[in-house]
Amino acid sequence: MDLKIFDRMESEVRGYIRSFPVIFSQARGSTLIDEDGTEYIDFFSGAGTLNYGHNNPVLKEKLLEYVQSDGVVHGLDMATSAKKRFLETVERVLLKPRNWQYTLQFTGPTGTNAVEAALKIARQVKGRPNVISFTHGFHGVSGGSLAVTANMKFREASGYALGNTTFMPYDGYFGPDVDTMAYLERMLEDPSSGMDKPAAVIVETVQGEGGVNVATLRWLKELEKLCKRHDMLLIVDDIQVGCGRTGTFFSFEAAGIRPDIITLSKSLSGFGLPMSLVLMKPELDIWKPGAHSGTFRGNNLAFVTATQALETYWTNSAFTADIQRKERQVRDWLENLVHSYPNAGLSVRGRGLIQGLVCNATPALANQIAQNAFKKGVVIETSGAQDEVLKLLPALTIEEELLSKGLEVIEASVAEALAEEGQSARILKFGGKRQ
Amino acid sequence: MDLKIFDRMESEVRGYIRSFPVIFSQARGSTLIDEDGTEYIDFFSGAGTLNYGHNNPVLKEKLLEYVQSDGVVHGLDMATSAKKRFLETVERVLLKPRNWQYTLQFTGPTGTNAVEAALKIARQVKGRPNVISFTHGFHGVSGGSLAVTANMKFREASGYALGNTTFMPYDGYFGPDVDTMAYLERMLEDPSSGMDKPAAVIVETVQGEGGVNVATLRWLKELEKLCKRHDMLLIVDDIQVGCGRTGTFFSFEAAGIRPDIITLSKSLSGFGLPMSLVLMKPELDIWKPGAHSGTFRGNNLAFVTATQALETYWTNSAFTADIQRKERQVRDWLENLVHSYPNAGLSVRGRGLIQGLVCNATPALANQIAQNAFKKGVVIETSGAQDEVLKLLPALTIEEELLSKGLEVIEASVAEALAEEGQSARILKFGGKRQ
Amino acid sequence: MDLKIFDRMESEVRGYIRSFPVIFSQARGSTLIDEDGTEYIDFFSGAGTLNYGHNNPVLKEKLLEYVQSDGVVHGLDMATSAKKRFLETVERVLLKPRNWQYTLQFTGPTGTNAVEAALKIARQVKGRPNVISFTHGFHGVSGGSLAVTANMKFREASGYALGNTTFMPYDGYFGPDVDTMAYLERMLEDPSSGMDKPAAVIVETVQGEGGVNVATLRWLKELEKLCKRHDMLLIVDDIQVGCGRTGTFFSFEAAGIRPDIITLSKSLSGFGLPMSLVLMKPELDIWKPGAHSGTFRGNNLAFVTATQALETYWTNSAFTADIQRKERQVRDWLENLVHSYPNAGLSVRGRGLIQGLVCNATPALANQIAQNAFKKGVVIETSGAQDEVLKLLPALTIEEELLSKGLEVIEASVAEALAEEGQSARILKFGGKRQ
Amino acid sequence: MDLKIFDRMESEVRGYIRSFPVIFSQARGSTLIDEDGTEYIDFFSGAGTLNYGHNNPVLKEKLLEYVQSDGVVHGLDMATSAKKRFLETVERVLLKPRNWQYTLQFTGPTGTNAVEAALKIARQVKGRPNVISFTHGFHGVSGGSLAVTANMKFREASGYALGNTTFMPYDGYFGPDVDTMAYLERMLEDPSSGMDKPAAVIVETVQGEGGVNVATLRWLKELEKLCKRHDMLLIVDDIQVGCGRTGTFFSFEAAGIRPDIITLSKSLSGFGLPMSLVLMKPELDIWKPGAHSGTFRGNNLAFVTATQALETYWTNSAFTADIQRKERQVRDWLENLVHSYPNAGLSVRGRGLIQGLVCNATPALANQIAQNAFKKGVVIETSGAQDEVLKLLPALTIEEELLSKGLEVIEASVAEALAEEGQSARILKFGGKRQ
Repeated sequence: MDLKIFDRMESEVRGYIRSFPVIFSQARGSTLIDEDGTEYIDFFSGAGTLNYGHNNPVLKEKLLEYVQSDGVVHGLDMATSAKKRFLETVERVLLKPRNWQYTLQFTGPTGTNAVEAALKIARQVKGRPNVISFTHGFHGVSGGSLAVTANMKFREASGYALGNTTFMPYDGYFGPDVDTMAYLERMLEDPSSGMDKPAAVIVETVQGEGGVNVATLRWLKELEKLCKRHDMLLIVDDIQVGCGRTGTFFSFEAAGIRPDIITLSKSLSGFGLPMSLVLMKPELDIWKPGAHSGTFRGNNLAFVTATQALETYWTNSAFTADIQRKERQVRDWLENLVHSYPNAGLSVRGRGLIQGLVCNATPALANQIAQNAFKKGVVIETSGAQDEVLKLLPALTIEEELLSKGLEVIEASVAEALAEEGQSARILKFGGKRQ
Repeated sequence: MDLKIFDRMESEVRGYIRSFPVIFSQARGSTLIDEDGTEYIDFFSGAGTLNYGHNNPVLKEKLLEYVQSDGVVHGLDMATSAKKRFLETVERVLLKPRNWQYTLQFTGPTGTNAVEAALKIARQVKGRPNVISFTHGFHGVSGGSLAVTANMKFREASGYALGNTTFMPYDGYFGPDVDTMAYLERMLEDPSSGMDKPAAVIVETVQGEGGVNVATLRWLKELEKLCKRHDMLLIVDDIQVGCGRTGTFFSFEAAGIRPDIITLSKSLSGFGLPMSLVLMKPELDIWKPGAHSGTFRGNNLAFVTATQALETYWTNSAFTADIQRKERQVRDWLENLVHSYPNAGLSVRGRGLIQGLVCNATPALANQIAQNAFKKGVVIETSGAQDEVLKLLPALTIEEELLSKGLEVIEASVAEALAEEGQSARILKFGGKRQ
Repeated sequence: MDLKIFDRMESEVRGYIRSFPVIFSQARGSTLIDEDGTEYIDFFSGAGTLNYGHNNPVLKEKLLEYVQSDGVVHGLDMATSAKKRFLETVERVLLKPRNWQYTLQFTGPTGTNAVEAALKIARQVKGRPNVISFTHGFHGVSGGSLAVTANMKFREASGYALGNTTFMPYDGYFGPDVDTMAYLERMLEDPSSGMDKPAAVIVETVQGEGGVNVATLRWLKELEKLCKRHDMLLIVDDIQVGCGRTGTFFSFEAAGIRPDIITLSKSLSGFGLPMSLVLMKPELDIWKPGAHSGTFRGNNLAFVTATQALETYWTNSAFTADIQRKERQVRDWLENLVHSYPNAGLSVRGRGLIQGLVCNATPALANQIAQNAFKKGVVIETSGAQDEVLKLLPALTIEEELLSKGLEVIEASVAEALAEEGQSARILKFGGKRQ
Repeated sequence: MDLKIFDRMESEVRGYIRSFPVIFSQARGSTLIDEDGTEYIDFFSGAGTLNYGHNNPVLKEKLLEYVQSDGVVHGLDMATSAKKRFLETVERVLLKPRNWQYTLQFTGPTGTNAVEAALKIARQVKGRPNVISFTHGFHGVSGGSLAVTANMKFREASGYALGNTTFMPYDGYFGPDVDTMAYLERMLEDPSSGMDKPAAVIVETVQGEGGVNVATLRWLKELEKLCKRHDMLLIVDDIQVGCGRTGTFFSFEAAGIRPDIITLSKSLSGFGLPMSLVLMKPELDIWKPGAHSGTFRGNNLAFVTATQALETYWTNSAFTADIQRKERQVRDWLENLVHSYPNAGLSVRGRGLIQGLVCNATPALANQIAQNAFKKGVVIETSGAQDEVLKLLPALTIEEELLSKGLEVIEASVAEALAEEGQSARILKFGGKRQ
């Protein structure tokens, strides 16, 4: 396949094309097919955007019907039939059964835009600019979201000093023995800690980009209490691990908490179409009409598939049970793998169908595994500050057979990478850190 | 039609639904159809997103084919066949004939994200945070873009102080006799003007949201020269008036300038699908891999329709000639209208198929006209700091008959609004300013 | 005289020592004496700090008495007898005769600290961070004041992006025909000008550092009205031209305005001792106890001399009449000088005993004149963005004879500089701009 | 004594006058005398400004001589004989014996101005805006310094969001078992901690305002190493505890470190006169001439007394020995006092002649003790985030007899306060926190 046009025309900023240097032409479920007809098992899922697989047939049918009948495609925030059906379905399928009340804001159809809107409304409500974010947190790269994103690679690209954010250590940041919530509380209680009173806390329950770091449910509960005690709004950014990734539709349900504001995107449309949503407690909705706008905030094709995704997967508990089954399978397999290589400095962490194989001893190993896996036909990525975590993110709907096959490929890739590493140990000692 | 679900579930931030309180279900070309079957002529075009009309049949066919064949829908920035074809088409149709070299960056598929990326690369290249923007400029509402957006309604929603921007008067801001370019130059030359040395200037050639303010071609040329003299990059934000709105594909072509960076979005996909693009001169591409990311930056459905839009409309000059014909028709009609009401304080401004009827004497008149028009079956919006400009933004592909019919409706709406205003003149004196 | 110790030990930031490379050891009235016994006429007055001359004998006597009797020297903001007497004297001499009510805040004893406090209280009162400052304005170089100081040399030294300030053109910035107040009003009235609503305007009635730019009294009156109309506080920074420099104690009295906040420093102590003061309308005093602190805000030696200066010079109008006499003398002389060299591109501007000889045609000329004058025994400095203005700033108490002698030296220095310039005209064409 | 003029004329911001509501008129050594002739023992020393006592006779003599002989009082940064002598004395007394090389910058004569200059040069040298400061740190209240000052009372007064600072926990912030240096290192090493790469660290070796928190010498050493490893400049703010307060002239000497930049003020002049100084390693001196200015940066009276203070106290080690003797006396006495009241929740901390009696159990107790002491004739203040620390800060030159007498008064005041507290324990439970 000829990638020259990409080299010639596309900015150096391009990224994933470097990890997977082929041209994909078709995709079905958990299978990606390149222009040569080679098939790949997808353990990447568009970084969490394809929880229901590629071209999910039920959703696809609805999409085709809608386009064929000349349904409104682009509608800004005008009322459309597709949007109405989506609103009704959210109310019926997501909110009523949980006895929750949230007001919905449709923002520009990217995760970062939802985060921007969430931060704005929180700051407006509390009248204070400072927001607490966490080490390794990722919330997007537009100006407002970037300020609460921890990774230097993204921050430095801004070209100016980002502000109005205080970074605090995430759960487990200093190891299992340090209670980072106590630290945060100390800083909040002390009027001379240097921390300007925050309007809100923004948090991911599992940090996908940050290295599959999992907050314990107890930590999340305490965070909710702390927010109440210190008059801060709790924003859960559920863009990567919401929409079922951890088993329940919202990732925080297991912790029994109720965030003030929730951001959703990625798998929300269910079909890989751009769509985003902010849910806020009704009393927070002090928005003035039109004060946050965006040309594509009414992506009706996404409304159509999102509605169908809710209908198909979230009207009963079967899907959750299925995800939990797969979680156990992946987790067991990963733990066995770690035990098989007791001296490799490997560990495993994750929740639901986001699981990480952590290569603490040799960060570069994770990328080697991913490269090996790609050669063997599995698309999989790494995450973490040093890309030291192999991130397993299969579609929630992946068939048993493909899942098993993918895991086997990964196992072989680990073995291969460790063997290579043994041979190149001397080199790695002097140049181990990846850029 | 029952809009209760919107009132109950959607945030107060919703806007256009208030101007057009019906539920749209279908759309074809320049016709919108609501749930009751009522048809509307679209003079709004998704705020510039639907230059080729709703559900353009040529594009639709390609879209359906692609989905039916399980083409990759979501691809982050991996290589896909659809993206490759788009790159090839941009090179062949847009760049080569103009003898231009630009590197392409696919950002998150919203205009604001393209602006964020453009500002980042400009600041990185020059190593300076300050950027010049103009009075009445609109560039989006995410943190970075919002800082260069002039309107207070959007700025105040941020909840923190926006910085790193100096606003300068746009062409004509102080009336036709004041040369605002001379003012800008004075501030740049004077080391004690208080203006921190800018990395870039960001400008719209026609300010769509700002009130259909048109920069003269001479002013744009001088701006380009000024940028060179003062080592600033020239960013043309062509999101609203690019893609043919002013006759040529890029709005700045008439001025004979070559911006360092160009942002495109809105009508880029041609079908109302979210898509954005940054073009930068190759020497500016100092991006590090992955330093600006975004889940939906590879919206392949948009690549498919965007490719077809270029093929259909931009491989020869016929479309440009057609737009110019329509421009003359709309312009003549508007000027006649203004002459018919010499005491109404009306004027007209615009370029290409973005034309504004300016209600200077009574800003509220513009909204009254738009409301009247909607009752008579035309969807049209207002813009400007006080919403004092009726903005005519029909599809570039609108049929002659619909165009004429729409203009007639508007004419009747103006007459009606002026008659009403005569009756309510005393009231308007004391409450004329719209919120 | 051996200046090596300065070269060896002192930072490159040192400035005036470069213009006047001798070591001064004694000073009396308007005479400076160096270590070799050479005498200089002082037309610089410590940049406006020595309005009553060096070691003014009446003030000196009070100072010596106070120190000899072990009066409290350092008192933070504790009550001292010296401070009490100063408060009583301000009330009796400055406020009661004008029928004014102002609350006094003693800040750290530098002008910049008074400006910092003034900006803080203005922002607190209005709850908005933005402040309007003017082109060529100088208000100090600490973080808060630096943001409202226009000169790039100072701004760039901060090492970070300064914000929360909008610079507007000062009176006459675009020449005599452009009404800059109308421009400011347009920006304030327009909700889409990009200007964030300001809490305050900070202004000098004569810009000393900025090049002896004089605001007309009409412009100042209009500024006061504009502030009221747009709910902004008016801060007059009277640090350089207050304390009698323009004839009256406060420089704005001639304009008949009443600022909300006034900052004083420089000549306030009357003896060159560090002292600063903020006057604010009583209703603005929402300070919390101790919320703005500073170790030296109770410089009791300065209270002693400041009290005596008010008693000696400001209990009747004789001093004002004397200053006006000298103003006429200096002004007439300067205008004659300008007329004598009609082709030299010179002009004159100023108010009271701050007068500038402006070398528009050849900015470098001003420094050449200053250097010549120093060689002939007059200490005088330049100001302006390009140091193009020779700034005449003699003590208000200068004896007639010294004043005339100083003016003669300057006249000779001008003649000499112009003669030199004629010889080096070709060179100046290619290297005219001073760094 | 009549304090009405202060109530009527002075801003609510006034502070210490509320703690000590008398009018002081004279002062000698460690004795303050009010207008009624009542004498007070000074355990406050102008918050560290009067290390050599009030009106120190040796210094006073030099000052009087200088003024009587019409020495130059105000000189901006022109060369004067007094400044030359000061430079020579610093070189001979402070730098040569330590074999150190530092370049001197004379800033505006306040501590905050020295901090502003230090931060500016650090940011310029490293080209990065972020600076690390510590919990409970105090560095002044002007814009730049305020951003690195931790206390909310001061920060909130700014009226805008302070930035470009990351606050890290000071030594001991989480108790003796938590190694805060390890925390700081983790944040610096992790490219995804959210901490923007700092240009510098600013630290006090003992936090005077922050509650007499003492950094261990080991922690300071590690901090110096960390700065080198991470390319950050180490700024020691020695304004409050330099000039001998901890025994040696510079407070950091005991730790054996060599900061890149040092700020001095407060007791630098030795006489309570405003004066400040920045010392920087010569290679950091990239200042442009005049880029940081200030009217009073050449306070020649302060040069005269500062020179004499160095000559009198710092040319041999006798003074250091004397301070150490007094430190032991105060420390022993305080520890005895704490042991006498084992249930009172008291503890002691400090270094040299800055010692704190910490009232952890009942923060309000500290102020009660201070009030009692004032009634009994001792001027003493509290510090800490909740004013929970009685801060003993006698002159370094205090006579044995006065020191003992003062300590006895404090002992009696503690006893009295604890007795009162016993009676009001129930009330304190519900309203214990002071504002």
